[in-house]
Formats: sequence, C-alpha cells, structure tokens
Amino acid sequence: MPTLRLALCQVNPSVGDLTGNAALVRAWTRRAADAGAQLALFPEMMLTGYPVEDLVFRRSFVAASKAALDALAADLAADGLGELPVVVGYLDADGPPQVSGDAEPGRGARNAAALLHRGTVAATYFKHHLPNYGVFDEDRYFVSGDMLTVVRLGGVDVALTICEDLWQAGGPFAAARTAGVGLVVNINGSPYELNKDDVRLPVVRRRAAEAGATIAYVNMIGGQDELVFEGDSMIVAPDGTLLTRAPQFVEHLLVHDVQVPAATDGATAADGAEVADGLRVVRRTVDPIPAAPDGPAATGGIIEPVADEAEVWQALVLGLRDYVNKNRFPSVVLGLSGGIDSAVVAAIAVDALGPERVVAVSMPSQHSSEHSREDAADLAKRTGLDYRVEPIQPMVDTFLANLSLSGVAVENLQARVRGVLLMALSNQEGPLVLTTGNKSELAVGYSTLYGDSVGGFNPIKDVWKTLVWRLAKWRNAEATRTGQTPPIPENSIGKPPSAELSPGQLDSDSLPDYDVLDPILIGYVDGDLGRDGLVASGHDPAVVDKVLRMVDTAEYKRRQSAPGTKISMKAFGRDRRLPITNRWREDG
Amino acid sequence: MPTLRLALCQVNPSVGDLTGNAALVRAWTRRAADAGAQLALFPEMMLTGYPVEDLVFRRSFVAASKAALDALAADLAADGLGELPVVVGYLDADGPPQVSGDAEPGRGARNAAALLHRGTVAATYFKHHLPNYGVFDEDRYFVSGDMLTVVRLGGVDVALTICEDLWQAGGPFAAARTAGVGLVVNINGSPYELNKDDVRLPVVRRRAAEAGATIAYVNMIGGQDELVFEGDSMIVAPDGTLLTRAPQFVEHLLVHDVQVPAATDGATAADGAEVADGLRVVRRTVDPIPAAPDGPAATGGIIEPVADEAEVWQALVLGLRDYVNKNRFPSVVLGLSGGIDSAVVAAIAVDALGPERVVAVSMPSQHSSEHSREDAADLAKRTGLDYRVEPIQPMVDTFLANLSLSGVAVENLQARVRGVLLMALSNQEGPLVLTTGNKSELAVGYSTLYGDSVGGFNPIKDVWKTLVWRLAKWRNAEATRTGQTPPIPENSIGKPPSAELSPGQLDSDSLPDYDVLDPILIGYVDGDLGRDGLVASGHDPAVVDKVLRMVDTAEYKRRQSAPGTKISMKAFGRDRRLPITNRWREDG
Repeated sequence: MPTLRLALCQVNPSVGDLTGNAALVRAWTRRAADAGAQLALFPEMMLTGYPVEDLVFRRSFVAASKAALDALAADLAADGLGELPVVVGYLDADGPPQVSGDAEPGRGARNAAALLHRGTVAATYFKHHLPNYGVFDEDRYFVSGDMLTVVRLGGVDVALTICEDLWQAGGPFAAARTAGVGLVVNINGSPYELNKDDVRLPVVRRRAAEAGATIAYVNMIGGQDELVFEGDSMIVAPDGTLLTRAPQFVEHLLVHDVQVPAATDGATAADGAEVADGLRVVRRTVDPIPAAPDGPAATGGIIEPVADEAEVWQALVLGLRDYVNKNRFPSVVLGLSGGIDSAVVAAIAVDALGPERVVAVSMPSQHSSEHSREDAADLAKRTGLDYRVEPIQPMVDTFLANLSLSGVAVENLQARVRGVLLMALSNQEGPLVLTTGNKSELAVGYSTLYGDSVGGFNPIKDVWKTLVWRLAKWRNAEATRTGQTPPIPENSIGKPPSAELSPGQLDSDSLPDYDVLDPILIGYVDGDLGRDGLVASGHDPAVVDKVLRMVDTAEYKRRQSAPGTKISMKAFGRDRRLPITNRWREDG
Repeated sequence: MPTLRLALCQVNPSVGDLTGNAALVRAWTRRAADAGAQLALFPEMMLTGYPVEDLVFRRSFVAASKAALDALAADLAADGLGELPVVVGYLDADGPPQVSGDAEPGRGARNAAALLHRGTVAATYFKHHLPNYGVFDEDRYFVSGDMLTVVRLGGVDVALTICEDLWQAGGPFAAARTAGVGLVVNINGSPYELNKDDVRLPVVRRRAAEAGATIAYVNMIGGQDELVFEGDSMIVAPDGTLLTRAPQFVEHLLVHDVQVPAATDGATAADGAEVADGLRVVRRTVDPIPAAPDGPAATGGIIEPVADEAEVWQALVLGLRDYVNKNRFPSVVLGLSGGIDSAVVAAIAVDALGPERVVAVSMPSQHSSEHSREDAADLAKRTGLDYRVEPIQPMVDTFLANLSLSGVAVENLQARVRGVLLMALSNQEGPLVLTTGNKSELAVGYSTLYGDSVGGFNPIKDVWKTLVWRLAKWRNAEATRTGQTPPIPENSIGKPPSAELSPGQLDSDSLPDYDVLDPILIGYVDGDLGRDGLVASGHDPAVVDKVLRMVDTAEYKRRQSAPGTKISMKAFGRDRRLPITNRWREDG
C-alpha cells in the first residue's frame, strides 16, 4: 500500500486579507515541504478567511479571490514548491452573484477548494452540503456543488470535500466509496462550541466508515468577530482509528504518514459517472509529486483535548486577542469594579494581550464598597495591568443637580457616567472598550443599556454566571499549579454579587440565586424549552414565569449589545434571532 | 362562468399575539360576510404574525399556533360564519423542529396556509418556494412543501399559494395551470421596499399568465421591528387586467366579484398526480359556501400607488407607530437640535403618535447656535409636541474638570452627555428614545457611538440624507396643500448641516457634499459596486477611496446601532451582513 506524507496546516487566516493569507500559505507550504510532505492541506476559505458573509455579493471581492488563487499557484511554483500539491479553500463564482428577483434567484458563488500544482489550479471542488443553521447562512451565499473531485496523485485517489460535507450522511463521502477513493480530504472553517471536539471525532469516524477511506480533517484556528475556530485537525483511518490529532486553539503543522490503497481503474466509477446524491465524478491527475522521503515514518502524535474550563478559557483568550489584533486596536480598557465579571475579563485580557496592553479603571461612586476598591487594586497588583482610579461622583452629582431623577433612573445614571468615562478614554488614547456582562445578565436584562453595556467587545458574552465562577477558580488553580500568581482575588470570587448602584444592593434582591437561575436559562435559551418543559424538569413554576418574562422583555437590550466570543450553539447574537416586537409569552 | 365574491382582508397582525390575531380574523370575517363574500383571504402567517424568526424552534410556540388554528375554526363556526371559507396563514410542523446535527438536518416546520370551513381545517398548503435572501432566512426555518392544494368551492377550483411562490416561475403557478385551476390565492407577508409596488404588479401579471388563472394577492400591513408591510393587495385577471387594488399602509377590506371558469373533471390532473416542480395535486371540496349575493356586482376599485416621498413617509410613520404601540411604549423622546434630521424624525413621530405622545428635548451646549435653538422651538410650536430645554454645559464641564480630554474626545463627550440625559428621561418617565441619524451618517460613521446613536428605534435609519431633505420638503408641501401648518421650519431645511460639537463646525469639514456623497454610497451600499465600478460611473477616484474607507471602518458602529424602519433592499441591519473584522479594502 503506498504511503503518503500529509501536512495538515492548521493556520489562522484573516477575513479579507487575501495578501496576508496567501503569504501564510506560502510560508506553511515551505514548512510542509521541509518536513517532506507530499500533500499539503489548508482550511476552508483559506484565501479569503471565513465567514466572509455579504462580501460574497461584491463582484470585486470574488474577482480578487480568484486572482489571488492564480497568483498563489504561480508564486508557489516560483518558490520552488510547485510539485507539492496544495489544497486551499477560496471563494469562486460561476457568474455574477444575484441576490433575488423574479424567475431564478440564482446566485453563482461557490465555497470552493482548489488543488494547486506546478503553477496552476489543477483541480477544483465546490462544497456540496451547505449549512444553514446556527451561525451558518450558506444557502444565502452559495450554490451547492454537484461534482465529486477525485485527484490521482502519488498513485492514490484523493477526494476533496469541505466542512459540512462531513456532517451529513449520503453525500460526498458515500460518493467517495463508489468512486473507490483511498483518502478523503476535508477542509474546515468549523467554529468552536463547548464540547464540539467530543462530537467531531465520532462524526469523522462515521464518515471514514461510510467512505471506506482515510479522512484528513484540517480546521483553521483564530477569532473572527463572535466566532472562534479551534483547530483540532486530525487523521482517521477507514476502521475509525485516530491516527493523529493536533492541539486546539494554536497554529500547528500536523505531519503524518498514511497508508493509502493504490488507485485502480476499471472497478471504480469513471470520470463523469453519477455516483451519489446527484454528484458526478470529476477525475484529475497531478504528476509528479515529491518522492516519498527516506528515513523513519512521520507521526503527528495525538494531543488529547483539554478539560472544559481550559478549553473555554483558551477560546475566550484567542477570540479577544484576534478581535483586538486583527482590527488593529493598540490596547483595551475596561471598568474594574472588584466584582467577579470584570475580574475574569481583566484576566482574560491580560492572558490575551499582556498586562501592558490592558487598562483597567476603577470608577467608584458613593455606593462602592471599600472591599470593591481593594479587590480591584489587588487584581491590578497580581496581573500588572495599567490601573487607574476615576471617581464618578462629581459627574453623577451634576446630573442629579440638573435633572429630577429617582429610583432606577439614578442607578442607571451611575452606570452611564462610567460608560461615558470609558468611551472618553477610548477616544483620547485609542483602546477598545471591553464590556464585562455575563450571559446570565444579558439574558434577563440585568444591566444598564448604554451603561455597563458600553463597549466594542465582550469576552464573556456567552458565559453563564456560574461558568464565570468556575473559570475564575480554574484559572487561579492553573496559576498555582504552574507556580504563578493567581490573577483573580479570592474576594472577587467569594463575595455575593452586587451592582453597587444603591445602598446595600445585591443581585439576589432582583434575581433568583444563579444556581437556580442558570439551569432555567440554559433550558430556555440553549435548549429552546418552553414553560411547561422547564416546569416538568423540576423548576419552580413561579420562578420560571418570572425568569421567562425577564428574558423575553430584554431582547431590545441584547440587540444593542457589543459582539463577543461565542462558545455555545445559542449565544445571543447572529445565531439566535428573535423578534423584538413579539407578544408571545410562554405563560400565556 | 361562475362569479365568486372575494374579500381580501388587508389587516395588521402582531408577531406572537395569537389571541389578538385570531380575534382580528373573526372580526374581519364578520365584515367580509356582511359584504356578501363567498371566500375570505387573510395574509401569510396571519395567526402568528410575520416573521417569527427563531420562535419557530420553540415547540411550545408551534403547538400554540396549531391549537389557535383549530380554536379559530371552531370560533368562526360558533360565530355563525362557518360556511364562509376562510384562508389564513399559520405556523405548522410535521414533527419536532431540529436545528442541526449529524445525518439529516431535517427541520419539520412549515410556512402554512389553512382553509377553514364549518368549524374545521378543510385544507392546508405548505409554502413551496422559500426565500433566503435579503431579510429572508426561510431555508433556516422551514421545509419546502411539495403539494399543490386545490379546493373546489362554489363550483370553481381554487389553488392556495404563499408569497415567494409568486416570485419564481415554474412552481405552483405552472402546476396550477396543469391542474386546471380557475383562481390562485396568494397570501403574503411581503415587506415594503421603495418602488416594490412597481415590480409587484408585473410579477402578478406574469404568474396570472403562467397559471392561466385569476390571481388574488393579499398582503398584510404594519410594522414589525425593521420591516414594514404595505398591503397593496390586488386581483389580476388571467389576461393581466388589474381588476382591483387596495391602498398602501392602511388596513382595508377589498371586496370584489370575479368571474372564474367552472371546474371540470377529466381533462385536469387528478388527486395525487405530479404536476410541476415535484408538486403533487391534493384536491379538497368544501360545500356549501354562501350563495352568490343578489344586487349589483361588488367592485373594490383601483387605488393608484402614491408618489415616492408620500410612500416613504407613510412607511416610516407606520413603522414607528407599530414599533411603539406593539411594544407598548407610552410615548417617545428625542433630542431636537434644530437640524434637519431630528426635525424630520419629530414630524414623523407626531404623524405617527400625535403631538401629546412626543417629547422633544433641546440640549444646547456652548457650541449650539442661536438659530438652532430657535429652529427647535419653532418646530415645537408648529407641531404642538411636548418641548423641553435641558442645557448640557454643567455636565460637560464637570467631565472636563475631572478628565484630560481634547479634540474628538471632547466633541463626543457632548453627544454622550445628551445620550445620558435622554436615557435618564426614558428611565424616569417611560418614553422610548428615538435616534435620528440618517443612513448617510450611519454609512460613513459620522456619529458618536453611545452619543447621538443612543436610542431604541431610528425612524430614518434607512433614509439617505438627500432623501431626508426631499421628505421634509414634501411633508411641508403636503401640509400647505391641505391647509395645515408645515411642521418643519424652513431654516432647518435650508441651512448647511452641522453637528455643532466644536466652534463653527460643518458636516462639509469632514464629508463630501451630500449631493456627491449619497450617489457614491448608494452605488457601494445598495448596489454592491466596487471601487472600479464607482469610478467607472464617473465619481472622483480620490473621493471614492475616502468614502469607501469610511464605510468599511464604520461597521462596528452600525453593529451597535438601534433598529429602524427599512425602506430598501440594503438597509443596514439584518438584511446586510458584513464582518466587522475584515481587512478587505476596495482600494487594495
């Protein structure tokens, strides 16, 4: 059985950076060649980044993607890398994109893969299964491909597939079996979700069995607005054996030798034959490819996925780092109250950017407790971030002297003065303002619109309050384990949460305990359970009614909140779409 | 040829208000019966409102829709209206909705129509063509129907179709011809777009020719978050003759007698036959229906669509009124600067809600000109709204005394103090804050995030600045024409626009003249033209580059702006989706 040395290039492309992304491909192809690779694989939409959303409708963008692909093929050859076949995702189009209209709403754009060889595009494949759920809108953007591209190289037949093709049975992987393919390449822009690594491997195994072939799964890493891509690239044998697996959340070159059956003619589906799900076989041959290297077999090893808290922490750190760096912000600023949420955001920011790029501002009012100020200062000392104190009482008092305000209007005023202060700092010095509201608060609307919700990015937007605490404890324990100073003061973790906007105020004055609240929210938001389903799960009907009413009426606040890293199927934002104007109530 | 008296019920349902929407159907069915109707038609998703978005994934909501449909059928019969066939849109599902997953991503929800008769659901139809462009995401929500429902009533065969079915050739309308149908009902939740009425009639005519049948097109009216539905219900004969047409933007009962060929058996496709595009004929008979009434033929008349400015004005008024009323806000508040944008928003608000529900606050600073204050007061006098003056200088001075700010940070501070002031008023007294930024400003980011962008709804979010001026002139001329006081001061229309955040500041210091800017923005935003396309259209390359750069970098501001009424294909918001993190630049 022939051996093929694969290089899975788990890299971090940037949306829209065609030049930079092409440069990444050239650099990593060099590394792959140096490692003796005979086939190098890059993620879905590598050249454009992913997802490009409505840029698909810009003809100039589509043209630039195609031009960049041709230039990349030529550049790789000029680099002396022409004989190494390189699979790379890009945006293609059959014709001008068309958004709607009478007759056919035909849109010609394609989520495409190209195999580059000897300076040219030797083969292309168009994604067959287009996901259109959760964060995915690919029926909006792309036309489904109807060909199974099979490339003969080094004596073996290799099929090209893209992302969602893997998640559905009966499509290109079934077709690959009929076509007698030995290796199926699957290139991905597969966003992170908590525990997704636990379902990914079984799915790859099912498709390996369906195709009767080895699967080379390569995924990107990096942050893109609310999405984080985690990598977790891997190779799985036809019998389901995990051969090699890359780490999560870091760039990685995964080089591994696979045994692949030699290609045979005759018994398999011919060029042009229809095989499965309307797919026709398109056969290409590339020759020569680099010779099998001498020496010992290359093995990529198997990295086990990390524990939940570590995984989420890494996702949040990477999501923030890439949002800040890819958008070219010099630094970030946040309000540091001494409470748990801002403490965790500060620690994430320091891990993402280093303490010198994080400004934290304590903005005490007359309701701020002494321990809050001390806990904020303590965190600053532990992490070394740029710490400042800006009392807000003079501004609050001036507003109160000029307006007749009472009750919640006075509470919100304090949060809004803090928002103005942070935005003034942002305008004056350039840092991006971070918002620090957790998912539980966002869900029930326990925040001040244009107050503590002010900011350009929220690292913990998709983190339930109880998980915020777990993350804090995990991060401190991790520091202790590795001999560093735990970044988060124990006081911030242990004390009862309070907004400190009125005397003696506690979250528990307005909300159920988070141990009670979070399971209801998780059922309602993440699980789409209705009132009756929640009550049947054992929750107190009166509490359920109260919580659901709060969630339903907070939609307008969530609609105006900052983007933030997504770690679940049902983060607030573009993958959860509810009408603001809505009179449906679960309790009738 | 039999005559059938149709009642097209152009009503205003509310999303989620199953009880209220069912009550609407009962009341309007009564009116239709009183007018002698033999078939009453209600819009798409009448029972649930439209669009319900991710509520589709809530099983309890689907169950409530189905229960409400059964109850409605029984209630109509109890009302003594059982024999009048009533077509009504609702949400159905074959089984539990499923969002994603391995194997089949089958989602069982249906965009459905029911024909109610004698207390039961006598026939159902599931929408065949699902739109998935612009504001539409129906591939996310619904499974496409594969039956052509044909109901025999009063001796004629009537096919049921829904909205997008009309916009594509070769589908249910082609099938209707094969099935020998005399009348095709098309129920709609078709959102308003500028000039859509100009394309709608030709499309209805094409489908009438394709089906060889009369088309009864009924559309809802009303505002739903960013969408406005305009009505424009109509009946078109097989030869393309427009028989009757309802007014736009108001509820209307359109009653009209149509001549429809008598149904025949034998020559036409039988029950269960496959006719076109995979559709199978499902035949139902309802009998008896109300007898043809005595007396003269009913005619609904033909209302000609109004001119552009009138149409947009009505759309903005209806969009705001329904957002405020359906969300149960008592009133609105806005900052009234004396400039054109806030003047137009104030006039829209007064038309939508009456002057007693509109609070306008003049918030002068040291940079506010005397004429600005006078123009604001003048508008207040003309319209009779609740006018207040709240100087911001004391608050601004306190911030400046406590922070070291300069340049644009000082400019933005003033806008943000105004935002805090309006939100304090909102918290204290309950009104919804209206934002007044026009589409040109939003496009180039010429606004203060958390300053003038503060607010829950923006009536002119999708109105280019040059159209704002045209609307102001039209509204004043309309007032003069009808003997009322023009609401908008001539000064506000005529003076050069200024943010008045620094001494002598004018928009033209930072932006090209709006006569130059708007055509570039329209090409780039609405037309998806690239740099080269814009330059080829005759625009100055240097201006194009400057404008495109501003638009591209303002995405983060737009992402956090309030919802607002949409009047075009490419309003900022949910129907225009661009990555924030994006390094693609048209000028390379």
